[in-house]
Amino acid sequence: MNSTGSSPTATAWSVVVGVPAEQPGEHRVSLMPESVRKLVTAGAEVLVESGAGALAYATDAEYTAAGARVVSRREVLADSILVTCVHPLQAAELHDGQILVGLLGRRSDTEAMSSYAERGVTVVSLDELPRKLSRAQAMDALTSQANLAGYKAVLVAATAYPSAFPLLMTAAGTLRPAMVLVLGAGVAGLQAIATAARLGAVVHGYDVRPEARGEIESLGARFLDLGITSSGSGGYARELATDETSRQQTGLAQAIGKYDVVITTAQVPGRTPPLLVTEEALAQLRPGSVVVDLASSGFGGNVAGSVPGQTIATAYGVTVVGAGELAGTIPAAASLVYSRNLVSVVEHLLADGRPAIDLDDPIQAAVVLTYDHRTVTPEDHDELQPVR
Amino acid sequence: MNSTGSSPTATAWSVVVGVPAEQPGEHRVSLMPESVRKLVTAGAEVLVESGAGALAYATDAEYTAAGARVVSRREVLADSILVTCVHPLQAAELHDGQILVGLLGRRSDTEAMSSYAERGVTVVSLDELPRKLSRAQAMDALTSQANLAGYKAVLVAATAYPSAFPLLMTAAGTLRPAMVLVLGAGVAGLQAIATAARLGAVVHGYDVRPEARGEIESLGARFLDLGITSSGSGGYARELATDETSRQQTGLAQAIGKYDVVITTAQVPGRTPPLLVTEEALAQLRPGSVVVDLASSGFGGNVAGSVPGQTIATAYGVTVVGAGELAGTIPAAASLVYSRNLVSVVEHLLADGRPAIDLDDPIQAAVVLTYDHRTVTPEDHDELQPVR
Repeated sequence: MNSTGSSPTATAWSVVVGVPAEQPGEHRVSLMPESVRKLVTAGAEVLVESGAGALAYATDAEYTAAGARVVSRREVLADSILVTCVHPLQAAELHDGQILVGLLGRRSDTEAMSSYAERGVTVVSLDELPRKLSRAQAMDALTSQANLAGYKAVLVAATAYPSAFPLLMTAAGTLRPAMVLVLGAGVAGLQAIATAARLGAVVHGYDVRPEARGEIESLGARFLDLGITSSGSGGYARELATDETSRQQTGLAQAIGKYDVVITTAQVPGRTPPLLVTEEALAQLRPGSVVVDLASSGFGGNVAGSVPGQTIATAYGVTVVGAGELAGTIPAAASLVYSRNLVSVVEHLLADGRPAIDLDDPIQAAVVLTYDHRTVTPEDHDELQPVR
Repeated sequence: MNSTGSSPTATAWSVVVGVPAEQPGEHRVSLMPESVRKLVTAGAEVLVESGAGALAYATDAEYTAAGARVVSRREVLADSILVTCVHPLQAAELHDGQILVGLLGRRSDTEAMSSYAERGVTVVSLDELPRKLSRAQAMDALTSQANLAGYKAVLVAATAYPSAFPLLMTAAGTLRPAMVLVLGAGVAGLQAIATAARLGAVVHGYDVRPEARGEIESLGARFLDLGITSSGSGGYARELATDETSRQQTGLAQAIGKYDVVITTAQVPGRTPPLLVTEEALAQLRPGSVVVDLASSGFGGNVAGSVPGQTIATAYGVTVVGAGELAGTIPAAASLVYSRNLVSVVEHLLADGRPAIDLDDPIQAAVVLTYDHRTVTPEDHDELQPVR
């Protein structure tokens, strides 16, 4: 987007982009060398904190070769105007006029957003990206990360499962393939279905959104019909009514016993995830079954008793894996696609090669959560003048 | 095999089979309920140690339902004539006249075999099974376990690998598929090739045996030609001459740099595994690459510096997994096929429904390592009378 009419790359960029290392425990980095090279080629200056890419297997030498300057964290944060990250940085680390781009939470996180606003930091959060807008899809970090999380969920499940996923024919007879059920057919769910099918499992999928049936079936999986449908907005299901939730839980508890592996992916950003697999349903699973809960978080999860980051053995011999942050466990691939998302975002934030916030732009209107020392909502936009 | 000419199942069996729990850390069990039912139906009495199947997700209740008596370890070992196991039991736990069947080591383990012989225990070790004999294939526990180890090796590698195995096409561009090299195209290697290909990796395979090329290519993988071939006996390669080994290592070090994942499976029972991936070759791999060494054991491994049971990060950012005992990590499937192997062995050891050692039988001649208070070699057989 560029209100002067010239394309963002027509003018050589004049922007300093900073890439600090992520918090301990996070293996991803917000810009990989491949993307740094792209920004540098366009004219940006890129400052990378020494060691920022180490856990994603991107070395300081590769960043240098890509045209970045590898410096201290202090220098990155002092000298860059546009700071990229995966997880939020503390507002106190930033300064007035800086633009922070990453998965920074939602407009409803008022406390965090106020602290950025007070500091004069402009927050561009991809958690609020209008994902259905086709121009936004190259920026869609939630999708790129969910895709890899869905892939990894199958590896986690297959590793915990005490038998093999494919049908194996041996001199000692046949081993039957695993029966896998994937709940939620969004980006993560569809990738989980595809990956489990690749590995040779018999895969069924379920989603309340009626359009999911075709998507599930197009991957060669079968649709599990629990007789409840619900369409929502932005590609997410609407919240079910209480009686629908209860019918869904009961139907699932009845159907679940024939599956060896259940992967749940029903997540709605900023809301408590729906409880799909109840205690009662868990008790229907055979000993040795595995349940991987991709929605597991501090807000709860799709599976009764799942704990984020933990693998729990239930009393019935079922393994429940709370796996809310799987993209970070494939850090090289996840960082690569995340970086590409960020390059698109950075391009979108520039006019005449300089950062330019324009709240009349529908994408910026959605993702810019603080600006000019204020937290902003789409309703505020008329009051605020675009500033170059 | 039955020298009276009647089939082993024509007469109702008169044999007490004992299934003790395995040693701590081993999740498999030597007979699963499915196989217990088969033996009981044929007339055998089966005693199972309480909890023996727990880690393979076979409950005491399932054993009871299959017709076994679930009792204490002491009772299992006191009252059974034929004891099944995965790993060797201490001779001191057994008594004169008992037959121990399992993966009990090789004829060359003279110390262990002497202690069984002294105790009067007959050792039937599937480590010495003549695997190329078609009648023996249903008993081939090394094959059934290697098959699952090959499958699991790919899951281990894919889990440790910081990117995805398949080509992924996303709104943020394409992620290239992983390049996987499998060294050794025996049972484990071929299953690893098949599984990595299922997951969407680009797979190349290598083996010194010239017949391996066709097997590798039939799985859709490419044969890596290092220009060294060697045929051996029993399906294993012969040991290479020193200059051949060195040419193999050098060739591999030159070729290895383009792979992201290397799985090595070159194992020869009872011998030190050949060193395939040297320090020099490891240094050619890109940071983030993963090497899984299925030959890793106390005797060494195929990969420089691999340690059994450990995952090591090298100075060059390469992860080396010493994975010598992977079948035990898929305990339900591994126990199921192992059990089926053992049912075939038990059938083969009976004549008129009773245990009968006959060293004129080519399979028994190979697998019976101690008998009648002596360690026996095939050359001894003429001196020993078949005993019913």
